[in-house]
Amino acid sequence: MSRITLLTDFGTRDGYVGAMKGVISSIFPGVVVDDVSHDVAPGDILGAALALSRYWRLYPPGTVHLAVVDPGVGTERAALAAEADRRFFVAPDNGVLSRVRDACPEIRFARIENPLFMSPNPSRTFHGRDVFAPVAAHLALGAHLSRLGPPPAATVRLEEPSASWADAALVGEVVSLDRFGNLVTNLPGTSVGKDYEVEIGGKTIPVVGTYGEVPADSVGAVVNSDGRVEVAARERSAADLLSAGVGTRVSLRKTFPS
Amino acid sequence: MSRITLLTDFGTRDGYVGAMKGVISSIFPGVVVDDVSHDVAPGDILGAALALSRYWRLYPPGTVHLAVVDPGVGTERAALAAEADRRFFVAPDNGVLSRVRDACPEIRFARIENPLFMSPNPSRTFHGRDVFAPVAAHLALGAHLSRLGPPPAATVRLEEPSASWADAALVGEVVSLDRFGNLVTNLPGTSVGKDYEVEIGGKTIPVVGTYGEVPADSVGAVVNSDGRVEVAARERSAADLLSAGVGTRVSLRKTFPS
Amino acid sequence: MSRITLLTDFGTRDGYVGAMKGVISSIFPGVVVDDVSHDVAPGDILGAALALSRYWRLYPPGTVHLAVVDPGVGTERAALAAEADRRFFVAPDNGVLSRVRDACPEIRFARIENPLFMSPNPSRTFHGRDVFAPVAAHLALGAHLSRLGPPPAATVRLEEPSASWADAALVGEVVSLDRFGNLVTNLPGTSVGKDYEVEIGGKTIPVVGTYGEVPADSVGAVVNSDGRVEVAARERSAADLLSAGVGTRVSLRKTFPS
Repeated sequence: MSRITLLTDFGTRDGYVGAMKGVISSIFPGVVVDDVSHDVAPGDILGAALALSRYWRLYPPGTVHLAVVDPGVGTERAALAAEADRRFFVAPDNGVLSRVRDACPEIRFARIENPLFMSPNPSRTFHGRDVFAPVAAHLALGAHLSRLGPPPAATVRLEEPSASWADAALVGEVVSLDRFGNLVTNLPGTSVGKDYEVEIGGKTIPVVGTYGEVPADSVGAVVNSDGRVEVAARERSAADLLSAGVGTRVSLRKTFPS
Repeated sequence: MSRITLLTDFGTRDGYVGAMKGVISSIFPGVVVDDVSHDVAPGDILGAALALSRYWRLYPPGTVHLAVVDPGVGTERAALAAEADRRFFVAPDNGVLSRVRDACPEIRFARIENPLFMSPNPSRTFHGRDVFAPVAAHLALGAHLSRLGPPPAATVRLEEPSASWADAALVGEVVSLDRFGNLVTNLPGTSVGKDYEVEIGGKTIPVVGTYGEVPADSVGAVVNSDGRVEVAARERSAADLLSAGVGTRVSLRKTFPS
Repeated sequence: MSRITLLTDFGTRDGYVGAMKGVISSIFPGVVVDDVSHDVAPGDILGAALALSRYWRLYPPGTVHLAVVDPGVGTERAALAAEADRRFFVAPDNGVLSRVRDACPEIRFARIENPLFMSPNPSRTFHGRDVFAPVAAHLALGAHLSRLGPPPAATVRLEEPSASWADAALVGEVVSLDRFGNLVTNLPGTSVGKDYEVEIGGKTIPVVGTYGEVPADSVGAVVNSDGRVEVAARERSAADLLSAGVGTRVSLRKTFPS
């Protein structure tokens, strides 16, 4: 059972995703194609990198993960294929694979250069259809990375801002909003112990076990399913309630005994 | 051909749906996964229940329907598996299966308690990935309901408001808006005969056969594909045109002979 | 490997798409169903026609393309099945197949009239579920067009506005916006040579090779992946930047030597 997952910022209504799927199914009619999302915000490479980190390793070995958020299409930016822990990746070299590499430093890359694995006469404006989709189909068919092109001298890596200690508090920031308005931070959940509290936007908020334990009409912090500290409101958007967003400062400290 | 359908309020861009699909395909690589929607409004249990009512029985026997709209994740709310008319269901115990039960009172439930069918160390914030997805995969593989856990003593049931007679009119309300701005009511289409009219927001409107028969720049009522009375405008949103929404009073009566 | 693609303006949250998929999988459990989009703007027949033009021929022969944007459901408008270059189509007769016909004038049509290929007692408000989905499943199973009904006397055709020469410029207009705010025009890319420039909204803009070559904070024209002239901004919406939209005049001319 060969499988390709798709993550793009194309939206679906223009038919561009249909074009990619058509190319894939013409090359490898039996492959299963799973939509992860076509709703990444246009050009949001960091958001796509975080989303990819949430699912790539949950798929079985052999899965090919396509991630096309590609504002630099047709410029000098390289096109990459990669292999990490027996899963495969096809993506532009713009950092979208950064979180995969953080989790699996043994990742191997190839620059996609072999025209045999692309559509004939690829356009300069739609590599999703003309380069990435055919390469993904060929990887799913069993093509070796080394056939696609040479290893790149270097690849683009986007660092996440790191949390640091100051005044007995671990200080970090919001790195992402999810659909519910929950504020995902760069504070590791492993730093949270008994009797900790979180400060954000001048408010001190409790650490609770899950969303339903957040006090009504208020906010709380949970250790989310990625193992990160996340700030959530009760059945509404914490981002709205706190007027917070990506970059907002968040800190974690042990509660002062009273 | 085993099949699992997915209905969630997760959106797709954060990668949470990818995580669920990854878990499913790791447990049962050959199962077909059908996206129904990930665009349920956050926390809209009633909307999800109505959506589910529109498709569950149209799928072949053996299909597993996953419905994860779960504001109470990680709290005391139970996780349910169910079987109704040879289709299977996996969902939180919050009422999302209410319309299935209305349609099929012989539904059988099990509380999901057996950790063998969950991911190891399930998080408290993402049961979609750690509980519901693996259980759905195991049901698709043929696991029996009774293996998952005991029947629950009771389950949460959300009633639809019921229509009632007053002054020779059947009086109900809008229970849902669809994407087109059509106003779905709780008035049964079987109550509509020849020479009936509908009143909503102080306007009396005709009952017509289909959307294209609604008078231009006006509104009309149709018996929709669920067998309910629905108020629609001609190629625009009736909700906008009438400033109506869920809860707006709607009544149906026989036209007075003039 | 039989395959059906879906393009609708239903959105997904109401469960109508689930109903169509359920009907298809009940008739033909082994068929692969590919979502192209359910996010066509409500009633946007021209947009759906353009989207369809981008993928129909990239799918393998034998694929059945379903396109249900159907404001006239239940009225006198015919339901069509068609075959073009060995791909099949199921759609209302409202012009949504116009671009397929432009590309493949040998297209053959059948009026869907045979109730054997529809659901029993089809509703007048949801032919997607009761007529188009079952017909698509039967075509995927190998039913002949001629079994569905007779060829229609005529079908609705929506013409794209055509570009024309005036004052040594090729004058056309914006025919579509894509998700990125790029302005797709009816000017053929084959008209673009060396030293050409584009005029839109009183601005003269350069023709560049790809999106990343558009000057920062400005706009440029590319020949897009459809082979059309397209106006784009650098990592933002050209439509917003130029206050332009469908119908905005765009012209192409050779640069005056300076």
